[in-house]
This record gives sequence, C-alpha cells and structure tokens, in this order.
Amino acid sequence: MMINPHDDRYGLNRTVAFGPDQPLELDCGVRLSPLTIAYETYGTLNSDASNAVLICHALTGDHYVASKHPITGKAGWWDRMVGPGKIIDTSKLCVICANVLGSCMGTTGPTSLAPDGRAWALRLPVITIRDMVKAQAMLLDYLGVNSVLAVIGGSMGGMQVLEWAATYPERIKNAAVIASAARHSAQNIAFHEVGRQAIMADPNWRGGAYYETGSAPLAGLAVARMAAHITYLSEAGLTEKFGRRLQNRDAVSFGFDADFQVESYLRHQGLSFVERFDANSYLYITRAMDYFDITGSRGMKLAEVLRSVRARFCVVSFTSDWLYPTLESRHIVHALTAAGAPVSFVEIDSPFGHDSFLLDVPAFDDVMRGFMTSVLREAGV
Amino acid sequence: MMINPHDDRYGLNRTVAFGPDQPLELDCGVRLSPLTIAYETYGTLNSDASNAVLICHALTGDHYVASKHPITGKAGWWDRMVGPGKIIDTSKLCVICANVLGSCMGTTGPTSLAPDGRAWALRLPVITIRDMVKAQAMLLDYLGVNSVLAVIGGSMGGMQVLEWAATYPERIKNAAVIASAARHSAQNIAFHEVGRQAIMADPNWRGGAYYETGSAPLAGLAVARMAAHITYLSEAGLTEKFGRRLQNRDAVSFGFDADFQVESYLRHQGLSFVERFDANSYLYITRAMDYFDITGSRGMKLAEVLRSVRARFCVVSFTSDWLYPTLESRHIVHALTAAGAPVSFVEIDSPFGHDSFLLDVPAFDDVMRGFMTSVLREAGV
Repeated sequence: MMINPHDDRYGLNRTVAFGPDQPLELDCGVRLSPLTIAYETYGTLNSDASNAVLICHALTGDHYVASKHPITGKAGWWDRMVGPGKIIDTSKLCVICANVLGSCMGTTGPTSLAPDGRAWALRLPVITIRDMVKAQAMLLDYLGVNSVLAVIGGSMGGMQVLEWAATYPERIKNAAVIASAARHSAQNIAFHEVGRQAIMADPNWRGGAYYETGSAPLAGLAVARMAAHITYLSEAGLTEKFGRRLQNRDAVSFGFDADFQVESYLRHQGLSFVERFDANSYLYITRAMDYFDITGSRGMKLAEVLRSVRARFCVVSFTSDWLYPTLESRHIVHALTAAGAPVSFVEIDSPFGHDSFLLDVPAFDDVMRGFMTSVLREAGV
Repeated sequence: MMINPHDDRYGLNRTVAFGPDQPLELDCGVRLSPLTIAYETYGTLNSDASNAVLICHALTGDHYVASKHPITGKAGWWDRMVGPGKIIDTSKLCVICANVLGSCMGTTGPTSLAPDGRAWALRLPVITIRDMVKAQAMLLDYLGVNSVLAVIGGSMGGMQVLEWAATYPERIKNAAVIASAARHSAQNIAFHEVGRQAIMADPNWRGGAYYETGSAPLAGLAVARMAAHITYLSEAGLTEKFGRRLQNRDAVSFGFDADFQVESYLRHQGLSFVERFDANSYLYITRAMDYFDITGSRGMKLAEVLRSVRARFCVVSFTSDWLYPTLESRHIVHALTAAGAPVSFVEIDSPFGHDSFLLDVPAFDDVMRGFMTSVLREAGV
C-alpha cells in the first residue's frame, strides 16, 4: 500500500484491496473476498482525520466526482459542487468518494475477476445498498477516518446516506439526502425491471457470461438506459427542451428514423452510455436499489431505524422529480423528526426532474452552500 | 359483398375490401391499394342509417369492442360499456368499430399482403391518425352511413375523434374525447421511441422482414409493452395494487427472478401481449401517434382547426393519468370553446392512471351515461 490518503492530488484513481482476512459480510450471507475498492479523494485529510466528507454516487455514477472521467474525458459529475473554494470546499475539507460495490469502474463488481481468475459475471452474489455502505466503511477504516463531517448523496447516493445513518449512526455528524427515498417504490421497481428485461433479452447477454465473447449486450443496455433516462427528466422539461421540434429536417420523414429531436437525444443517451457502463453492473445495481427498503429489511418503523441518529440532516427534493417525488422526502423528514434528529427540509422548484441535483439549479446551490457553511462552522474548520 | 350492415348479430369479424379503383390517399403522398378494413357492428342500423355510433380504439386495441377476442378468448375491451341496455345501448344504436389502419387484426397493416403477394412488412407506407380516420370514412360510406350520432374514443381513439372533427365536421353530431390530447407530447414520443428501439434491437426483427423466418421479435416487443404498460398505470395505483409485496416467497431471492409481484405482473403483461400483437404494427401505430399534432399538420391554431365543428363535445380526463394529463384535455376544451362548439369537460378522480377509461370507474360511467342519454334524446331515438 503506497497510497497516502493525505495527498491532495486529484484524479489518482486509487484502489485498495482487502484480502481473504478481511471479507465483506454481504446481506445475502456470502463472505465476499477479495474486495477491491476504487476511490478518489479531493483535498487534504488533516492530521486527526477530522475534516472528511463522504460523497455517495448514484446508479450509473462513479468516484470521479470532480476529476476527469477516464473513458468519456468529461469533467466530474459534481465538478460544479466540489473543489477548492466551491460549495463543498476542498481547500478545507477532504472529500472521499468510492465507486460502489457492484459497479464497473474499479470496485469489485461483475466485471472483476473472481478467485478462479475469470470474471465474476452473474456468479457475483447479489448485493444491497447496505453492502455498498459496509464497503465504504472498510475504506474509511483503511484511510484512518473514524467519522465524517458529512455524508452526502443524491438518488441512490441518498439511499446510502440513510443506510449510513441506520448502520453507523456514530460515524456521521451531518447528512444530506437529496432526491431520494427510504424505500424503492413499485413504479421504480417496474422501470428497473424493464431495463433488466431489455438487457437479458439481448442475445449477446448469454446469461451474463459475455466478457469472453467479444460482444456485450450493448443494444439491450442502450434500451435500458433510454427508458431510465426518461424517468430522470420531467414532462415539462422535455417539452421545454425539445417539444415536437424536428431533428435536422423541415418535415417528418414518414419513416422510423429519429425525426424528432427528443428521439435523437434519447438514442444518443443510449449509445453513449454503453461506452462507459457494463450491462451486468446495471443489473446488480438496479437490483440493490429495488431491494432497498430501510424499514422492511429491519422489520421496524423508519423512526425506529433512525433512533440512534445524532447527525444533523438536510433533506432536499425537487418539484418536478417524479421518480423520487417530494412525498418520499417528507416521509424521511417525518421519521427523522420523530427520531429526534435535527432536520432541515427543502423542496426546490426546478423543471429538470430527478436530474436536478446534477444540474445548474441556483436554489439548490444556495441550500447546499448553507448546509456546508454550517457544517464547517460547527466543526470549527 | 355479402355483408348486410343491418344485421345485428355479434362478433362477425366482417371485412370490406377496397380495390384499385378506391385507393386511400395517405398523408405521406402514397395512394394505398388494395385496402381491407376489418370491423364489427353491434345493434341494428335503422332504415335511414341515423342511429350509428362510431367507436375508435386505442394503440393496441381492436374492433372487438363487445365481442370475444379471437386470440385471447377474453370479452371485448369495452364490453362493460357497449351492449343491449348498457351505457352505449345497442338495442337502440348501431355501434361500429373498425380495426385501425396499420394494425394486425384484419385491417391492412404490415402483416397484410402487398400486391406482390408478400407481407408489406416495412414496405407499408407510414400512416397517420388522419389516414386511419379516412379509412373509417370509407367504411361508413360503404355501410351507407352519412353521419354518426356520436364518435367516441379514448387515448389514440380520442385523437381519431379530434381528427374526425377536423376532417369531417359535418359527419359527426356528438363526440367524446377521453384521456387524449390534440398532439403527442415530447415525453410520450420518447416512451414510444424506447419501445421501437427495443423491437428494432431484437435480432429477430431483421428490418421488419421476419414474417417468413418463423421467429418474430417477441422479446423486443415484450420489453416495449412492459415500458408502455407502466405509463398506462399510476404510481399510486401500482403502490396500492402491488407495493413492495413479494411474489410467492417470504424473502427476496438475492437473484434476478421476479421477486416482486410488480415484476411478475409486468413480465406477464409483456409475454401475453406478444401472443396477440405484431411488432411491426406496434412500430406503425406508435409512429402515427407521435406524428399526431392536429394543429401542426395544418399550420393553424387548434381553435381554427376546429372552427367548422358543430358537434357537441364531451371531454374527459382522469386525475392520475400522467400520459395524457388533464392539461391536454383543458387545451382541447379551450380550443373547442373558442371555436364556438358546445363542450362539457369532466376531470374524473381515479387512481388507475391512463387505463382508467378501460376500467370500472363508476364516476366515468355516470358521465358517459349522461352523454349517451342526451345523444339519444336529441336524436329522438
């Protein structure tokens, strides 16, 4: 281990490997080993490791929060939020983000090699949001970080934040749950199932064992992404952005090409996604989200699950988000309040749907700036 | 032509064929010939053909409104609404419903034989909602029906009703537009495009030329149906019907089987659909809906398009319908009012989403009963 977590260089794509002596006890009962976690840090961890902030990424996100994505070459997915002098200020804080378990960007997932030297593929046990969080806790242990000033996440990232609060309440001082839910709804399970069926219907999928065939189920994965992408936007947003405008033509073609801009956009979303993501990882991570029901898996009410929480919470929803509507956030706020946790709740007016947390929404920036200011003030950083 | 339209027997699956002397002038510019129209009638047409009601079906519907479906063996899709003594009372009225152009239940569509003796497949010109309506007008001419007491349709059926009002205002006396829109939204185009991409990604699709291969793109079509089916329901309805309940098990399987009831239900919807519907027809009819913009295709405002309408309108929307939300109906009502047409507008509280118009919603029955009562009273039938 030549890695120095106190290094403040960016984009190092660090990894840590846990051997047979440190298996991860999965919810399904399997002890997973070996385990590799890929992560990034931004900013310098101070000597008593008291200035760490953990960011949890969404379904198809990664640990390149504020550094160039190695495949797409694009800026990090929260580059506008994380950096020196930015809202999550890495001149004062050390931001840590790990690629989630089951993903395909360096952390153990279906593309990783199993002990037999071949890719896990569908032999990887099905994982849960709690398993992801347990892996992150192992990373924090390795980095010498006992507790974080804040854990922050949107969408599936918010699920991880809630799971942190339930599983390791003593390790988090503040928490931001953005555009998320305490359990995945029937409709959201349904949309994920459509995506999985699209992948599994692709003959190239071959029961998940496609890594050695040279042809991945890209067509199925693209369809899955297209269906999901619609749910990340809003009807009003789509109407405003595209309406019924035609793509590079004056009249409809009376054919099945992408006549409309919205079709062209959607096809592009599907095609570009398959260049950076693995179909089996998509199966595993959507499954983890579907299984997420922080109360159900513990057999108690949400307020009981969160009863040990001492962290201060900030819960954010967006008016046009129909995937994780405000109702879901209210449910979380209600339970946190009943559990005696201090909680701020803001519903932000935005036309961009679920994706609002990734986009330029000044009112959301204001909320996050206020949250981070109080985090820093309280910590005396 | 041995068909007697005054016959009141049910479920005859009648067809009428129009030869080279009666081509259908399509919006795309092609003169389509030959043309077969499959239709059903319910009730007896009176001697002056003054008691006809035209029902227009939705995307995957058919002319078996109130008679047994020949493939599924199920009762007609509006059996509860149409029949002797029912809301649309066939002891007094003669109900006519034609399978739409482009479909696969008897009317000319991609499965039909082209003049060269082989299935049209993707060689069939792309059709529009107006083309469907023109074909229906040819059927009415053939049946000796100059004008109908009422034209009624939900979803894509409602689009046809609006097109009737715009194209043949003098041939309709009353009109009911249910859960519909005057133009297809960007989001709805996007969902259709996902379905089409799912079909076209299936290797069995072969550019549409699969009829002679013995293997249709059933997997792709099933995925398309699954995605669409979610949009026909509502989040609240799905939560109430399925929630996160498991399917025949006490705990999640930590696998990719249908653990949740909602997954099992959705898979069933996909699998049963492909037994009764053709993939290419799905492409053609979704395309016709995407192209539907009753103002855009005429280059004028909706109120201008409808300026010759003298029919009395009834416009119905459902609170939980997010595919054709109430806003779309309001837009129609606004334009009809501006065009000087008498119009009643009812938004009905229902948890069943877009599918509400096909389901048991007593408040909707009340509205339709009132509408039909006044239709009969006015006609003196």
